[in-house]
Amino acid sequence: MSVEELLAATLARIGPLDLAAMEAVRVRQLELTKPPGSLGRLEELTVHLAGIQGRVRPQTDRKVMVVMAADHGVTVEGVSAYPAAVTPQMVQNFLDGGAAINVFARQVGAQVIVADLGVASPLPPHPALLNYKVGLGTRNLAHGPAMERAEALQALAAGIEIAESLAAAPGGLDLLGTGDMGIGNTTPSSAIIAAFTGLSVERVTGRGTGLDDAGLRHKVAIIEQALAVNRPDPADPLDVLAKVGGFEIAGLVGLIFGAAAARVPVVVDGFISSAAALVATEWHPPVRDYLIAAHNSVEIGHRVMLERMELSPLLNLNLRLGEGTGAALAMGVIEAAVRALNEMATFAQAGVSEKGNQESEVRN
Amino acid sequence: MSVEELLAATLARIGPLDLAAMEAVRVRQLELTKPPGSLGRLEELTVHLAGIQGRVRPQTDRKVMVVMAADHGVTVEGVSAYPAAVTPQMVQNFLDGGAAINVFARQVGAQVIVADLGVASPLPPHPALLNYKVGLGTRNLAHGPAMERAEALQALAAGIEIAESLAAAPGGLDLLGTGDMGIGNTTPSSAIIAAFTGLSVERVTGRGTGLDDAGLRHKVAIIEQALAVNRPDPADPLDVLAKVGGFEIAGLVGLIFGAAAARVPVVVDGFISSAAALVATEWHPPVRDYLIAAHNSVEIGHRVMLERMELSPLLNLNLRLGEGTGAALAMGVIEAAVRALNEMATFAQAGVSEKGNQESEVRN
Repeated sequence: MSVEELLAATLARIGPLDLAAMEAVRVRQLELTKPPGSLGRLEELTVHLAGIQGRVRPQTDRKVMVVMAADHGVTVEGVSAYPAAVTPQMVQNFLDGGAAINVFARQVGAQVIVADLGVASPLPPHPALLNYKVGLGTRNLAHGPAMERAEALQALAAGIEIAESLAAAPGGLDLLGTGDMGIGNTTPSSAIIAAFTGLSVERVTGRGTGLDDAGLRHKVAIIEQALAVNRPDPADPLDVLAKVGGFEIAGLVGLIFGAAAARVPVVVDGFISSAAALVATEWHPPVRDYLIAAHNSVEIGHRVMLERMELSPLLNLNLRLGEGTGAALAMGVIEAAVRALNEMATFAQAGVSEKGNQESEVRN
Repeated sequence: MSVEELLAATLARIGPLDLAAMEAVRVRQLELTKPPGSLGRLEELTVHLAGIQGRVRPQTDRKVMVVMAADHGVTVEGVSAYPAAVTPQMVQNFLDGGAAINVFARQVGAQVIVADLGVASPLPPHPALLNYKVGLGTRNLAHGPAMERAEALQALAAGIEIAESLAAAPGGLDLLGTGDMGIGNTTPSSAIIAAFTGLSVERVTGRGTGLDDAGLRHKVAIIEQALAVNRPDPADPLDVLAKVGGFEIAGLVGLIFGAAAARVPVVVDGFISSAAALVATEWHPPVRDYLIAAHNSVEIGHRVMLERMELSPLLNLNLRLGEGTGAALAMGVIEAAVRALNEMATFAQAGVSEKGNQESEVRN
C-alpha cells in the first residue's frame, strides 16, 4: 500500500463516536452514589471515553506514552536556549528511565515508547526505541521548506503504523499519550498555529525552554521570515506541515490519525503535541472527537491552538516541559474518572436514598 | 490536659517552614534534566512540601484521607436536596469501599479513615470508623447556636487527637487529606465564610448537592436568618464555629491544627473542608503554610474562601462532591511532583548538556 493509500484508508476508518455507549454511561452515572453531575469533568470524561472506545464500561488498563523525537535545522538560527545535542542526550535519558516522562508514566502505569523520526545523529539500538528516522533533522525552515511533502508523508505513515501496531498488540490499547523531544520544536509549532490562524507570530510565540527577551524577539523574527519565505497554504495542511513543521510533529499527526482509526483515545500533551493535533484536525475534522487535551501549557500559543480545536484542557499546572509529561499526569485523572464509573456502588447496591423532594415536604 | 491546654500546646507547636530544606530543593530542581521551572506548580509543590516536612527529600509514601461525618439540625429547614438519612448511609458506603472517595484513595494508595463526629444515629462499630461522637447532630442554627462552645472544642480536640495519632503511627504520615460527609453541611460552610468576610449570603451560597432555584433562595434566607439570630463574632473564630458551624467542620479544624503541629501537609478538599481551613487560619494564621488547596469547587463560596486564605487550587475539574474526593485526586499530582524530584536524573548523571548561551554564539 502506498503512503497515500494508507493515509486515505486510515482517515476513512475514523468514525463517529458511539452514541449508545455514551448514553449508557450517562444513565449509569445517575445510579452511582453521588449527586448527579457532582464529579464534573470526570463524569464528562467517562461519557467521552465510552463514545471513543465504543464500550459502556470504558477502560484505562493499557496505557502507552509515545514520545517522538527529531531535530530541527532551524536551531542554527539560535531559536532555543539549549544546544541541539540535547535531543539525542534526552532520548538516551528516556531510554534509561531518568526523565520526567519516565517518572510520571511509571506512576500511572503507562509504558514509554520512544520513536526516532529524525534525530540528527545515529542512535544506538534499544528495545524501547523505534527507528523511523526520515532524515538527520529537518532543513532550516527560515530559508525554505523544512521537509519535502514526501518526507512529511513518510513520517506521518510511521505514526499511523506505530498506533496501529500498539492497538493490535495483545491486550489492546486503552489510552495513548503523545509526547515530543526535539530542541527547537516550539519554533515550527508556533509557525503552524500562525499559518492556520493568520494571527501575528508575536501572539503565538513563547520562550520555549527559556529564551530571554532578546532571544524571544529573534525567534519571532525567524518565524516571520519562515512564513514569508515558505508561504504555507492553510487550506492544505500537508503544505503547512511540510514547510514549517518537523519530523516528530508529522509523526504525531500520523499517530493521532492511527489511534482515532482504532478507536483509541489520544491524550494530547502540550504545545508541540497540540501543533500536531491542530494539523490533524485541520486536515480531517472528525479526528477531533478522539482527542483529550491534557493541560494548558505556559507557551502562549497553546491556548490559541486549544481554542481553535475547541478543546478544554484537564490540568493547569504551568507546565512547559513537553515529553508528554502533561499527558501522563492527565492519564491519572482519566483513570480516576473511569475507575469511579466502574468501581463505585450504585444507590441500590449501597442502600443509599436518592435525591428526593423532601425540601418541599418539609417546608409545606 | 484540658481541651484548652491541648489546643494551646498544639498551636504553640506550629512552627515556621524549614527554609533550608526549601532552598535545598530549589537547588536540586535546577540540577534535574529539564529546563529550570518547566514543571511549574509541581516544582513549587516540592519546595513547599520540603518546607512543611523539614526534609530535603519530601515524601508522599504514607497518605491518609480522614473523612469526618456529622449531621446538621438545620436540615429540618429543607436546605439540602437529600434527606439527612443519607449521612449514615454514606458512612456505611465509605466503610464498604463503594464511594467515590474510596475509589480515588485506592488509586493513589491512601488509607481512608472515617470519623463520626456527630452523626444523628448510632453507627455499628467498624475497624475503619473512629467514634468521636459529640452529639446526635447539631442544633438548628436558624434558631440559635449550632453547638455550645464546649461542644465545638470537644470536636476540635478529637481532630487534634486523630492527627496526632496518625502522625505518631509506625511509618509516620506524609500527606493528610481532609474529607467530609454531612447532609446539609454547605449551609454552615456558607454561613462561616459570610460571617468572616461580611459578604452577602447570596454571594457565597450555592446549590450544594443540587437545589433548584426556589431551594437556593430558601437556603439563602435560612443562612441570613442564622447570622441575624446568632450574630457570630468574626474576631472570635470559636464563636463563629460554634454558632454556625458543624461537628465535622470543628473536627476538621482540629485535624488541621494537629497535622500542622506534626509538620504534616494538609491537602484541603473543597467547600466544607475549606470552611474548616478558614476557621483554622482566622484562628491561627501560621497554620496556612501547612495547607495545599486541592481543587476549585463548583460551590460559589469556595473561591472566596481560597482567596481569603491566599491559596491557589491545584485542580479545576468542576467537582462538587466533597468526601475528600478532590483531595485524593490532588494527592496523585503531589506524589508526581515529589517523585520527579526524587527519581529524575540530574544533568551530570544523564550526561545531558545544560542550558547554554549558544544562541548568542550562533548569532554572532
